[in-house]
Amino acid sequence: MVAWKNLDTLTAFENLKALKNKVDIKVAMAGENGAKRVNEYKVPMAEGMSFNYAAKQVDDEVLAVLADLAKEAELVAKYKELCNGAIINTGENRRVLHQLARKQQGDAVVVDGVDKRAFYVEQQKKAADFANKVHAGEIANEKGEPFTTVVQIGIGGSDLGPRALYIALENWARVNGTLKMNAKFISNVDPDDASAVLATTDLAHALFIVVSKSGTTLETLTNEQFVRDALVKADLDPSKHMIAVTSETSPMAKSTAFMQAIFMDDFIGGRYSVSSAVGGVVLSLAFGPEVFARILNGAAASDDLANNESIFENPSMLDALIGVYERNVQGYPETAVLPYSQALSRFPAHLQQADMESNGKSVNRFGEPVDYVTGPIIFGEPGTNGQHSFYQLLHQGTDIVPMQFIGFKENQMGKDVVIEDSTSQKKLCANVAAQIVAFACGKDDENKNKSFKGGRPSSIIIGDQLTPESLGALLAHFENKIMFQGFLWNVNSFDQEGVQLGKLLAKKVLAHDTEGALKVYSDLLEI
Amino acid sequence: MVAWKNLDTLTAFENLKALKNKVDIKVAMAGENGAKRVNEYKVPMAEGMSFNYAAKQVDDEVLAVLADLAKEAELVAKYKELCNGAIINTGENRRVLHQLARKQQGDAVVVDGVDKRAFYVEQQKKAADFANKVHAGEIANEKGEPFTTVVQIGIGGSDLGPRALYIALENWARVNGTLKMNAKFISNVDPDDASAVLATTDLAHALFIVVSKSGTTLETLTNEQFVRDALVKADLDPSKHMIAVTSETSPMAKSTAFMQAIFMDDFIGGRYSVSSAVGGVVLSLAFGPEVFARILNGAAASDDLANNESIFENPSMLDALIGVYERNVQGYPETAVLPYSQALSRFPAHLQQADMESNGKSVNRFGEPVDYVTGPIIFGEPGTNGQHSFYQLLHQGTDIVPMQFIGFKENQMGKDVVIEDSTSQKKLCANVAAQIVAFACGKDDENKNKSFKGGRPSSIIIGDQLTPESLGALLAHFENKIMFQGFLWNVNSFDQEGVQLGKLLAKKVLAHDTEGALKVYSDLLEI
Repeated sequence: MVAWKNLDTLTAFENLKALKNKVDIKVAMAGENGAKRVNEYKVPMAEGMSFNYAAKQVDDEVLAVLADLAKEAELVAKYKELCNGAIINTGENRRVLHQLARKQQGDAVVVDGVDKRAFYVEQQKKAADFANKVHAGEIANEKGEPFTTVVQIGIGGSDLGPRALYIALENWARVNGTLKMNAKFISNVDPDDASAVLATTDLAHALFIVVSKSGTTLETLTNEQFVRDALVKADLDPSKHMIAVTSETSPMAKSTAFMQAIFMDDFIGGRYSVSSAVGGVVLSLAFGPEVFARILNGAAASDDLANNESIFENPSMLDALIGVYERNVQGYPETAVLPYSQALSRFPAHLQQADMESNGKSVNRFGEPVDYVTGPIIFGEPGTNGQHSFYQLLHQGTDIVPMQFIGFKENQMGKDVVIEDSTSQKKLCANVAAQIVAFACGKDDENKNKSFKGGRPSSIIIGDQLTPESLGALLAHFENKIMFQGFLWNVNSFDQEGVQLGKLLAKKVLAHDTEGALKVYSDLLEI
Repeated sequence: MVAWKNLDTLTAFENLKALKNKVDIKVAMAGENGAKRVNEYKVPMAEGMSFNYAAKQVDDEVLAVLADLAKEAELVAKYKELCNGAIINTGENRRVLHQLARKQQGDAVVVDGVDKRAFYVEQQKKAADFANKVHAGEIANEKGEPFTTVVQIGIGGSDLGPRALYIALENWARVNGTLKMNAKFISNVDPDDASAVLATTDLAHALFIVVSKSGTTLETLTNEQFVRDALVKADLDPSKHMIAVTSETSPMAKSTAFMQAIFMDDFIGGRYSVSSAVGGVVLSLAFGPEVFARILNGAAASDDLANNESIFENPSMLDALIGVYERNVQGYPETAVLPYSQALSRFPAHLQQADMESNGKSVNRFGEPVDYVTGPIIFGEPGTNGQHSFYQLLHQGTDIVPMQFIGFKENQMGKDVVIEDSTSQKKLCANVAAQIVAFACGKDDENKNKSFKGGRPSSIIIGDQLTPESLGALLAHFENKIMFQGFLWNVNSFDQEGVQLGKLLAKKVLAHDTEGALKVYSDLLEI
């Protein structure tokens, strides 16, 4: 049995605190020593990618203590317990099985007589069969015409992850001949969200996926009804245009209002659900089931690496440890995620949810307040766009913000242009390389306004190309990083009690059952 | 003459520091006192909007010191100097005239014999004439067919602001019959950005705006060439599909490669340029010149309020002062911008640039290092989406993140659905009201995992509907907030030297003129 201990009770953490400001990366990254670091401080990732942490504030001594910390916190053993079906989500008394949707990592996990791996595979097969029939025209609209657009109705994890992955592969699929259907998303309870999507959608050829685990998510039910009304108004039969992704026990599961229901369960939380039917149905429809399977394979390859005890063979664990050093020793409250790939434009928003919702906690997994800071603020936009925007603060602001770059050697669509003797792709890569060094090393100038202090830490994940496999590997890398950080902070990364109070008060407002400040706000907003 | 002094030399700031943690909003916002605060702690904004700061950690005593600080820092006098054409951008020895593009606020500003207000109006007229001719079919493609899509090629300020505003009004324009052309944007040097846009654009009916003040922005020139190649390949004449927005002295100004050039100048920085031709041309083409004029009118109305000496009649100044209290006294490093409006989905990204690029500085306007923190990290996503994502951390994380909500009583598109006795719009408004109170007041629970500490400060801007006028007023409110904060921190909010080093190093990489770490990163990325 592993021992669940608070971070500040671990000897290795005490040793780590003694190493605050140990490494001046402005010095360490200069000259030949810098070159040596970039060559040596890298760890292979899944799918041919590499995690390079040369520009992080670590050296061999810090790394040795991080390795001690990993061992003392039993990070890999905890991951193995998770894979074996332990009740890791203590608050909700649930297993945590998103990795199982990708591959059988550990022992069979049987719940109420159901083998969960078999269950996930069965749902994938149902999604694949459905998608194949839609693509073949066997499942078609009232007139027997093919569906051309799929619209996912869901919010939070049912929106951000699937949307980020769709955008990440839409253009790759377009040039690789696997863009089977366009995908769109409706999430916000703001009625303009649904209105806007419907205003530009050919309803007669659109298939809608309603995604809600409980079948009671208010935003999603509302948007479902909004769409139903629009279908009826267009003389279309909603039950021939809608499928459900829900749990087997939800009211949506057996409803005749849907063509079919494909199932998820309580053991994969919303922000991890892109590997479940929540991502599987829409991505199989958009790109074909084979592409979705390739995403899962890439993710499973990252999950495999998370089993390695050595920090130098376990990139998500190393990434997690460095992050905790930055957060709890160096005292940096944010992390910027900066992919140099337009296709990853919404990937930071997905990670923002995955990370902040998982580790934005003040109590440990036993419900006791912790005496240290936990999950950081996550934000980011793609480069080079960000360079012309908020990078000014990252370079010359008064705060230090650790950065996580992502770059690929090749673009997805294969078209390029040569200007000033280099392609756009080379310019893109040159910029990310330049930024890492500029942030780390800075530059002195007599004019202090043109001076760069440097000392701003970053890592980079380098891949060959953003493909279904590398995208899946990236997704799982970050999921596992978050998991390992949750283990270190001893929090439950898999519940989200912080969303409840707002829901409760919103219901009171709608019932006009309010007083005090809430009543006045309600009046001001004319609710 | 005003005196430019560092924040920590001001007496009022010393007094403010003594008021750290003065107000416990969990207490202040409870019961009838809370109701009283919500009723009283609000200031009218332009265009019928209202800035409500009841849930901020202020009381009459804090507000009195903030008023002292405004006076001692001569905030309004500095704004008036700016409007009168003073060299506020000291680093680049430039005036700051984005407000002048909206209205003559102060004295005539004449530079090299040119009245700048007349210059901006002339460019607006050129943009309007051009747009009207395009809409009337007088300016058409090679076959005399109308242009239906406009594509803006630009990065940073030439992208984020215009894009955010286009998205903000696209659906409003659709239902109001003023969506004249679809607008798209190409920004990133990643060649997949241009490829993806072109793959879904009918080139024969597309008009491209190339936006670069200097005419030398590498990303933009590269994307321009990318588009030119595509037009030629489609047997189209690029010079009949492209116009330029640039400065009069740039190589693009007189080039025959463009149908026309419309001008900007050095006195409106990129992140403030949405009011100039940078925003004017694309928005006039998309929505018609009248709509763009309405945006400017709304902005001018906010600018008018910035002249008021009283903090209770100057919402952007009050917002700025509270932000400095939170940043420099309370010690919060971030601000979340949370619009409850799907149409404002990219408005936080624009503000992220506007704020972080303006005030992410470590030296004052004289180039001397400051001993206090300056601009915060800005991030945000629309609600209710964010509630199902990163709000968990905002509610229950270990750090406090001040929040800036925005809400409207009515939606833009007029369609809605009633579920459980309320419309989606009411649900949207109920949620934002509920969140403010949940964040401020929290809720105790025996189960600490379900406990909410409260004490998390927020403000809300409430408007009737997101229209061209209210959007312009919002834009200018935040621009002026940033300006006032820059005055308080005594930084130059209008240069961006922090972007230079990366550019320089990227050029070295592309020239293969590197050594040390930079060379190894270049090799790893196969540049």
